Amino acid sequence: MVAPDALERFVRAALEAAGADAATTNAASRAMMHGSRLGVDSHGVRLLEHYISVMEGGRVNKAPKLRFSSGFGAVAALDADHAHGALAAYAGMDKAVELARTAGIGAVSIRNSSHFGPAGAYALAAAEAGMIGFATCNSDAFVRLHDGAFRFHGTNPLAFAVPAEGNPWLFDMATSAIPFNRVQLYRSLGVEVPAGTGSDDAGIDTLDAHAVEMLAPLGAAFGFKGAGLAGVAEIFSAVLSGMRLSFDILPMNGEDRSTPRELGAFVLALRPDAFVDRATFEDGMRRYLAALRASTPREDGMVMAPGDREWAVAAERVDGIPLDPVTVEGFGRLAEHYGLPSLDVL
Amino acid sequence: MVAPDALERFVRAALEAAGADAATTNAASRAMMHGSRLGVDSHGVRLLEHYISVMEGGRVNKAPKLRFSSGFGAVAALDADHAHGALAAYAGMDKAVELARTAGIGAVSIRNSSHFGPAGAYALAAAEAGMIGFATCNSDAFVRLHDGAFRFHGTNPLAFAVPAEGNPWLFDMATSAIPFNRVQLYRSLGVEVPAGTGSDDAGIDTLDAHAVEMLAPLGAAFGFKGAGLAGVAEIFSAVLSGMRLSFDILPMNGEDRSTPRELGAFVLALRPDAFVDRATFEDGMRRYLAALRASTPREDGMVMAPGDREWAVAAERVDGIPLDPVTVEGFGRLAEHYGLPSLDVL
Repeated sequence: MVAPDALERFVRAALEAAGADAATTNAASRAMMHGSRLGVDSHGVRLLEHYISVMEGGRVNKAPKLRFSSGFGAVAALDADHAHGALAAYAGMDKAVELARTAGIGAVSIRNSSHFGPAGAYALAAAEAGMIGFATCNSDAFVRLHDGAFRFHGTNPLAFAVPAEGNPWLFDMATSAIPFNRVQLYRSLGVEVPAGTGSDDAGIDTLDAHAVEMLAPLGAAFGFKGAGLAGVAEIFSAVLSGMRLSFDILPMNGEDRSTPRELGAFVLALRPDAFVDRATFEDGMRRYLAALRASTPREDGMVMAPGDREWAVAAERVDGIPLDPVTVEGFGRLAEHYGLPSLDVL
Repeated sequence: MVAPDALERFVRAALEAAGADAATTNAASRAMMHGSRLGVDSHGVRLLEHYISVMEGGRVNKAPKLRFSSGFGAVAALDADHAHGALAAYAGMDKAVELARTAGIGAVSIRNSSHFGPAGAYALAAAEAGMIGFATCNSDAFVRLHDGAFRFHGTNPLAFAVPAEGNPWLFDMATSAIPFNRVQLYRSLGVEVPAGTGSDDAGIDTLDAHAVEMLAPLGAAFGFKGAGLAGVAEIFSAVLSGMRLSFDILPMNGEDRSTPRELGAFVLALRPDAFVDRATFEDGMRRYLAALRASTPREDGMVMAPGDREWAVAAERVDGIPLDPVTVEGFGRLAEHYGLPSLDVL
């Protein structure tokens, strides 16, 4: 366990020591802390050492010059100059929110970006500004098509956030049933993967974690829905930005840490009171969430709104965030390499 | 089998005979023919007798006055005056496309609407105008939450269409695994429902079609994803328009045919060349779809893009559309009631 403030200071110090400019340091640490605070640990501070390695390698630009272009009233295209994906996505969402203030809706297509971590962080940024947010990207291919036997799509997340009383409604899903790092976890634990989530090299679903060569799209027998949703992410993030399709993206953890990965992304903000008066909208969300949380659960079950689990974790982690041993080791290496004060483990 | 042109003439004649104005007749017949041409028969001409009953009953306004309002550059709110849902949704999408021509993106929130049939029809209307389209609505509650034991959401569709060489990429999904009329079909066939699609009155999944009291959200063990997607539909269509939440909507086939159902809907159009030059976008879609259709299938499997199945059915049905016996009977009643020439069955 580490104190959240101390953790964030360490993350920032390491990024700065690696030469990241202030905007990159702010955005990358904000996105990683989103993951670590809300319990999305796969996209939390465990990525710090990786991000620094790709900045040192040159894949990610430590001091990018972001350029927006637009000839239309409510949209913009952002060339992120191979920035850290979090900087590109937060900057894109800031612009989308600004556009939505006057146009009612704003959308930004992002090109020349890189791994952006938790999609929900950027949707949430819109909700924090009183807007409905949507963020998506594609990623290197791990997921087969419905009836396919080829890694075609990335885990291609779709994330939405909606302002609500208390914490925002926050929905951040991969369009595969599970992420690939879950398969690695099952392998190390020696347990089976859940039915309909992983497939062997012939595209046939298997329960054997070691035989999993690709992920199944969300939906199992109805995987055409998960595959179609992955297509939504692919078209909005890669086709609409002219960037790489999932199967053409260099692997995140490949040997090459110098070639920019040319990722696309897409962010959207809607201003609720451009559609309906603010009180009606707020009352609708209040009523929807109250009814949802009070609705009959099945025996031993618990009904939650999207985000409720994450906000509960965030409340638990106010005083301390757990770190896995591999991440602690990596932090030790970073502290030694850059001569940083090491992080106090509580 | 009936000839498509003759079928459309009959549908139009019946709507006109029931007193629908020209705009309602055009929109409702276009939406039903979308369903019947593309093989989405649950939302095809089988709905004609139902639609006429609710126009005669007064629930749906046969000659509505649609009013748009907007104080923002890229969005509008449409009060549909209890129009047929197809008229409201097509008019909304026309407006969204018009807004997107100058703003790059356009969105319309629709209030005081009614059952709109196939969501894909309205997304497709955007693609036919060279835009990316999105359409959604909520509907009366049939679907439990993840770990829930209560009909909370409707089957809440999400539909996207993207212009592409040949036919558009067309993805129209319910956020439940299957629609409720599929359960009725399994009952009449005496077969089991697929695992993870239907639940008993305690919210426990069952294979017994007769025991199914509610639908499961898409995703089975990962049903929090399907439930979250249903929430996206609910928030965009009902909360953003101030209309009824799914569990408050009067049943479509209830005895009351006179009270307007106060449904909301939401449509969005994006102009691709506001984000990236047209050639790059078109080339990206061509490359994406070619790679998808050529990618390795699993043994005895077939890989298809969203919409490919529907476009294949449409090609088969160019010369004749099959009608089920119940629909043929209903058409007979309508022909007799309104003194229409009966439809030639091929």
